[in-house]
Amino acid sequence: MAIINKNFRTLAAGYLFPEIARRAKAYQDANQGVALHRLGIGNTTEALPPAVLAGLHAKVDKLGHNDTYSGYGDEQGDTPLREALASYYKSLGVEILPDEFFVSDGAKADAANIQSLFDRRSIIAIQDPAYPVYVDSNVVAGRSGQFDREKGYYENFVYLPGTEENKFFPAPPTQKVDLIYLCSPNNPTGAVATHEQLQAFVDYAITHKAVIIFDAAYSEYISDENLPKTIYEIPEARKCAIEINSFSKFAGFTGVRLGWTIVPHELVAEEAKPGELHSMWFRRQCTFFNGASNIAQAGGLAVLSPEGLSQSRAIIAYYMENARIIREGLRSVGLTVFGGDNAPYLWVQTPKGMGSWEFFDQLLQQCQVIATPGSGFGPAGEHYIRVSAFGHRENILRAVASIKDNLVLEVRS
Amino acid sequence: MAIINKNFRTLAAGYLFPEIARRAKAYQDANQGVALHRLGIGNTTEALPPAVLAGLHAKVDKLGHNDTYSGYGDEQGDTPLREALASYYKSLGVEILPDEFFVSDGAKADAANIQSLFDRRSIIAIQDPAYPVYVDSNVVAGRSGQFDREKGYYENFVYLPGTEENKFFPAPPTQKVDLIYLCSPNNPTGAVATHEQLQAFVDYAITHKAVIIFDAAYSEYISDENLPKTIYEIPEARKCAIEINSFSKFAGFTGVRLGWTIVPHELVAEEAKPGELHSMWFRRQCTFFNGASNIAQAGGLAVLSPEGLSQSRAIIAYYMENARIIREGLRSVGLTVFGGDNAPYLWVQTPKGMGSWEFFDQLLQQCQVIATPGSGFGPAGEHYIRVSAFGHRENILRAVASIKDNLVLEVRS
Repeated sequence: MAIINKNFRTLAAGYLFPEIARRAKAYQDANQGVALHRLGIGNTTEALPPAVLAGLHAKVDKLGHNDTYSGYGDEQGDTPLREALASYYKSLGVEILPDEFFVSDGAKADAANIQSLFDRRSIIAIQDPAYPVYVDSNVVAGRSGQFDREKGYYENFVYLPGTEENKFFPAPPTQKVDLIYLCSPNNPTGAVATHEQLQAFVDYAITHKAVIIFDAAYSEYISDENLPKTIYEIPEARKCAIEINSFSKFAGFTGVRLGWTIVPHELVAEEAKPGELHSMWFRRQCTFFNGASNIAQAGGLAVLSPEGLSQSRAIIAYYMENARIIREGLRSVGLTVFGGDNAPYLWVQTPKGMGSWEFFDQLLQQCQVIATPGSGFGPAGEHYIRVSAFGHRENILRAVASIKDNLVLEVRS
Repeated sequence: MAIINKNFRTLAAGYLFPEIARRAKAYQDANQGVALHRLGIGNTTEALPPAVLAGLHAKVDKLGHNDTYSGYGDEQGDTPLREALASYYKSLGVEILPDEFFVSDGAKADAANIQSLFDRRSIIAIQDPAYPVYVDSNVVAGRSGQFDREKGYYENFVYLPGTEENKFFPAPPTQKVDLIYLCSPNNPTGAVATHEQLQAFVDYAITHKAVIIFDAAYSEYISDENLPKTIYEIPEARKCAIEINSFSKFAGFTGVRLGWTIVPHELVAEEAKPGELHSMWFRRQCTFFNGASNIAQAGGLAVLSPEGLSQSRAIIAYYMENARIIREGLRSVGLTVFGGDNAPYLWVQTPKGMGSWEFFDQLLQQCQVIATPGSGFGPAGEHYIRVSAFGHRENILRAVASIKDNLVLEVRS
């Protein structure tokens, strides 16, 4: 009598993107032939650059000859790639040993699976708004109570709202928690934690023997040199933080699939000495994973070469120019815009306190622009929309022009 | 106060392959310059064939142009690949809908993660000997008791021994269990379940509302047309079985990483109607996974083309000729050999009731051949060794010649 894991029934329906698709389709059906401008999805659009393509092709060629063919690699990733990642962190001013990197098929899987290292009764703190994976993976693991539709929160989770007052990066919780998920640069708000803000979380974690799961998937979009690109810029973070990152937004690998997680040797938990969590993640990856694609890993190594880095950063600069165009366009019509300077997302306040979905509909109906309602990322996202800077330039320009030409904002009272 | 998942401490040390490496190194250190013949590891060795290489290169080229670049795909896999998999199963005489396939990065991850769909208190049955992932993933999930070093078993798991008497494929359990892991063709024994044997498990599962996890990763190695290549050749299996398969051994994708899992719409569990488990796995994959590499998926589609299939099957035939050479060689010196006719593994009885490790040492010392002690796959593997047919022909020939020339078997008493 197999019985299902009933925690899956606790998961609230994945409502956001299907609902966006439904409304877009309804509009399109009613307005045949009208083109929609899609600024909703955080997906890369620009071709991989030459150095990376060369690395991918070269690996495929190797797989075609018996003397260079390779099968299973190490679950934790190829040594040259882990060494290149260590050099990359050194260029950020941070010392990470090659064996502290665990190469994966992307940040999402690691962000979802990392909770399996911890006790089922752990208390979870998450930013609100947030990328849904942190919450959903812990619901499936049985750490939540029921979903409260009124509040938009799961019982038993500790939500840390990001608001205009705290510049969309919250302070540490006031009560005791065990695991804290942070995302900086943040999806969806585009906010980046300062050294002081991260230091406060590290201090909290050291004091309470909590563990920080730090999602840095957008770190390469930080151009302000005063902002930390990795939590290990806070020295004590090696005792209390796991960092997850990815080549997806760094180098257009959203479809190629490659990421990494850092579990420092010094990381501790209650009754777990330095080294045990590192060994546990090693064991977890060797049991539940068989390594990232060796083709993708060769691509990742090419990304970290001098040419690969400069070509990939040129594409990031292209997306960030998109962000600048969107920001200036939206401000020129009187909208209040946050983010978008060190992240590819803009966090736009709805005019006159409109609801997120109401403003979504207005942008769709008046401007044929699709954004993402902020409330879809959590209750604190209400009265905001997320605008993504990923897209071909010509589409971004058309979308901004349409907003400038067609958006009718009533005068604020 | 983060507390670790203590189930990780219950995991017995991963002793087998490190211990083989330790003994091989000790021998090598004591016998400098002597070449070892490695028949131990189940890893592919032959280059990818032209049709597959062309598919991989073509996808990399597409990623290099803005108009053909693609980012995130569907978590459940690209539609053309799922349709090609449906056609492949049709060629096996079985109807599976494209949306019943969930493309993954390989069978190991799916085999490890599938248990997360079920209640934590589920009773698990596994074949003995077995690939360690079925057991280890359920230990981490908290379904086992302690490891009994004396018996080599985890408490609370139900072990189904494969013996010479049952031709290494056990009968269903006599007590009630919830999840049953079957692997056919079997790693490590090379045994393949007959229709009648699978029918008995399906009957058991229907009667007890149990769910069968059927690992068919070596199905393409079956040449006997009377043996089932998929559990869905047993019609009622759609109500009670999940099938996991992979391009790893099928097409040399051990490093490229691509697999699939079938969750039929009719699959049920206690209090779970048809469709719910299918939706749960969909939700699980959308939450914990972001799709297999799009390059690997293009490679998989090329494998399933007529040229790709015939070229990949030629490589399988090459490995199976290796298996024939090994079988004949080992039999010619008087060893008793099972498997290796519909699977790339040979299951070799140790002479005179020797222990697995004792015979391992003899092969290493006398013949410089490395095999895998059967006891490493479970207590029922004691008195056997696994010999892998993966390898370049010249190495296989050298290994067999060394056994023929050097192995000294005392006359059986």
